[in-house]
Amino acid sequence: MCSPAELPLSGVRIVEISSFVAVPLAGMTLAQLGAEVIRVDPIGGAADYRRWPLTDGGESIYWAGLNKGKRSLAVDMRSPAGRQLVQRLIAEAGILITNATGRQWHSHPTLSALRPDLIHLEVVGRADGSTGVDYTVNAASGFPLVTGPADHVGPVNHVMPAWDVSCGLYAALSILVALRRRDATGRGAGIRLPLDDVALATAANLGFLTEVMVNGEQRPRLGNAVFGQYGQDFTSSDRVSFMVVALTARHFGDLTNLTGTTKAVAAVAEALGADFTDEGQRYEHRDVLGGLFAAWFRSHTADEVDAALAASSVLWERYRSFTEVAGSPRVTGNPLFTQLDQPRIGSYPAPGLPMSVDGAHTVARPAPALGEDTCAVLGEWLGMGAVEIAGMVESGTVAT
Amino acid sequence: MCSPAELPLSGVRIVEISSFVAVPLAGMTLAQLGAEVIRVDPIGGAADYRRWPLTDGGESIYWAGLNKGKRSLAVDMRSPAGRQLVQRLIAEAGILITNATGRQWHSHPTLSALRPDLIHLEVVGRADGSTGVDYTVNAASGFPLVTGPADHVGPVNHVMPAWDVSCGLYAALSILVALRRRDATGRGAGIRLPLDDVALATAANLGFLTEVMVNGEQRPRLGNAVFGQYGQDFTSSDRVSFMVVALTARHFGDLTNLTGTTKAVAAVAEALGADFTDEGQRYEHRDVLGGLFAAWFRSHTADEVDAALAASSVLWERYRSFTEVAGSPRVTGNPLFTQLDQPRIGSYPAPGLPMSVDGAHTVARPAPALGEDTCAVLGEWLGMGAVEIAGMVESGTVAT
Repeated sequence: MCSPAELPLSGVRIVEISSFVAVPLAGMTLAQLGAEVIRVDPIGGAADYRRWPLTDGGESIYWAGLNKGKRSLAVDMRSPAGRQLVQRLIAEAGILITNATGRQWHSHPTLSALRPDLIHLEVVGRADGSTGVDYTVNAASGFPLVTGPADHVGPVNHVMPAWDVSCGLYAALSILVALRRRDATGRGAGIRLPLDDVALATAANLGFLTEVMVNGEQRPRLGNAVFGQYGQDFTSSDRVSFMVVALTARHFGDLTNLTGTTKAVAAVAEALGADFTDEGQRYEHRDVLGGLFAAWFRSHTADEVDAALAASSVLWERYRSFTEVAGSPRVTGNPLFTQLDQPRIGSYPAPGLPMSVDGAHTVARPAPALGEDTCAVLGEWLGMGAVEIAGMVESGTVAT
Repeated sequence: MCSPAELPLSGVRIVEISSFVAVPLAGMTLAQLGAEVIRVDPIGGAADYRRWPLTDGGESIYWAGLNKGKRSLAVDMRSPAGRQLVQRLIAEAGILITNATGRQWHSHPTLSALRPDLIHLEVVGRADGSTGVDYTVNAASGFPLVTGPADHVGPVNHVMPAWDVSCGLYAALSILVALRRRDATGRGAGIRLPLDDVALATAANLGFLTEVMVNGEQRPRLGNAVFGQYGQDFTSSDRVSFMVVALTARHFGDLTNLTGTTKAVAAVAEALGADFTDEGQRYEHRDVLGGLFAAWFRSHTADEVDAALAASSVLWERYRSFTEVAGSPRVTGNPLFTQLDQPRIGSYPAPGLPMSVDGAHTVARPAPALGEDTCAVLGEWLGMGAVEIAGMVESGTVAT
C-alpha cells in the first residue's frame, strides 16, 4: 500500500460535505486508502473550521488532523449556482458522504435522479431524525453514569469522542461495502447511519443493555476496576499510577508473587471461602485483593514497579500524559507516524492508518487550505476552462 | 440488505481465532454483512467464554453479544491433528482474522505457503510486539489523566472499551479493503493492526497529541465541559443531570433566552471584555456562563428543563442509565433492534449493524453454542464424511 496508484481505492472519487469528527474521519480514512476525496465547504469554512486546538496564528490543529490527504473546494452552497455545481460534482464522483442533513438539494432522492447508481451516505443524530452530537448521544448512552470514581455522584463524560470515531469507521466501512455491491450489481445505495444507533448497537453488543434485559439489573459504577475480571489501578511511592490486569490464572499468580502476597491471598481465599482460580471471584473480591497489592505498590518507586511488572506475565501500563506520549518512542520510533510538513501549522509526526499491509504503512499527507483545489477540481472533474472558473470566482459562487 | 443471499459479503468465508472484543467484533460485523464466519475455539472455549455479565445459569451474555451470526467449531489446537485441521479450514476460507498471535502454525508465512492469496489479519497489542489490552492501552493513551471531575487527582478509565471497538472496526474495514485488492489483482495480504496504534492514531488525528507537538502544551482536565466550545452539564431541581451544548451563535442565543440570562450574559461580556459570538471565548468563560445558567436549572424540574430545551435549537440530552435506555423507545421502537431468540439466554431486542441501506436494517441472528457447527463445517468445507468426523471427535481432536 505504498504508491498511491496501488492503493485499493485508487480511482474512486468521493464528495464530502461535513463538519466535526465522524464524517471527516470517514473521508480521511477513505483518502488514506487511495480515494480522491473532495471536501466541499462553504466559503469561509464550515462550523468546524476554527475549532480548537488552534495554533498561535489561529489555524485549527483539529481541522488539519481530520482532513489530511483530502482536496478542498469552497462554494457558496446557499446560491442556486453553487448548489448546482456541487450536484454536478457529486454526480461525477458517484459517492457523497455527509452529516449536513435535511438539505433537499443534496438528499438521496434528488441526487439519485441525477446519478442512478449513486452511493449516498448520511450520518444523522438519531434514528428518529432529531439532532445529536457525541456529547449528547453519550449522555443518553448510559456510560457516563457508570464512569469515574465509585463514590462520585453525577455523570462523567468521556473525553475521547468514542461515538464519533466509531461512527466514522462504520461510515468508511459502509462505503467499502456499497462499492463492492455496486461493482457486482451496478446498484447504488442510500445509507443512513444515526450516531445514536452506533452507541446503542455498541452498548448492546458489549452486554451493557442486554444484561438489563436478561438479568434485570445493570452493573454499578466501578471506578477504574475491570468488570468481571481482576483489573485495578495502583499508585507507586512516587505517586505514579499504574493499571494492572490479570485475566488468567498465570497472570494472577505472577501478580501475587511479585507483590509478595501469595500466602496472604491464599489465607484470604480460605477465610472467605473464595476460589481465586475463578475470574468472577477475583472480580468480586477485588477490594480485599487490591488492598493487599496496594501496600506493595505504595512501598516501591515507579521504576521499581516497572521493572517487576515487566519481568512478569501481568498485563500492565503506567498512566501517561499526552505530553509523555507525544515524545515517546511509541510515536517517534513508530512507522505508523511519518514527519508531516503541514502548511500553516508546522512539521510534526502524523499518523497514517493504524494497520500495516504486507509490512507497509500509509504515509501522512497534509490537509489542504480551504478552497486550495477549487480551480483544479472544476477543471479536472467538470472540464471547466480558466475563463469559466474565473467567472464563478468573480460572481462569488466559488472561492480559491 | 435483507435476504442473506443478497448481502454484500455473501459467499465470503472467514476463519476467526479470537477472544475478547476487537476481533470478535470484526468477525461479527463481517458476518452481519453476509460473510460465513467460523469462530474456531479450543474445546471448552477460549479465555472469553465465561466472561461477565453471566446469566443465572452461567451463560455469558458478553460472549453471545459479540458472536452473533457466526458458526462455531471446537478444536484441540494444541494437537498436531487439530492444528492441521484448522490450517485446512483457513486455506479453504482464504481469510483468517485473529488476536491469538505468536503462534507459528497459524502465522502469515506458514499459512500463505498453503494458500498464496490468503488474507491474514492479526490484531496485536503494540507495534513492538508486546502485549496490550484495552485497559492498558488506554492507560498509556493520555486520556485517563484528562477524564473525570476537574478537581479529581489520578486517572479515570473509560468504561466503554473504545480502543477495542475502534480496532474491531478498523479490522473489518481492512478485510473489505483487502478483498477489493484481491478481487482486482489476485494478491493476498498480511495485515497487522496494533491496538496501541489505533489509540495513538486516534489521539493524533483528534489533535490531542498534535497540540503538544505544535503548541508545546496539552489541554487540562475539564470535567464534563467540551474543549473549545460551549458545553457543560447541569442538574435540575429534582437532581437529574443534563448535558447542554451550544455550538453556534443561534444555539447560544437560545440557551440564554430560555434560561432568562440574556441581559446578564451581555453584562458579563461587557465586564470581561469578552465576545460571546466567538466559540473560543464561550469556552474560556464557561465557568461564569455555567454559573448563570445553573441557577435556572436548579430551580426547574427535569420535566420543565426537558420541555424548555426541546423547544429550542440547543443540543442537549438527559443523562440516562442503561436501565432507562434498555426500556426506552430508542431501543424498543427502533428498527436497529429485532427480537432475538438466543438459545441458552433468552429472548430480547438485539441490534444489527447501525447503518441501514436503502431503508433496510440487518436482522440480529443468534450466537452459536460452542462447537455447534463442528460437524457441518467439516462436512461442507472439507468434504469429510460422518465416519471421519466421528473419528476426530473420538480422538479428541474436535468437539461438537
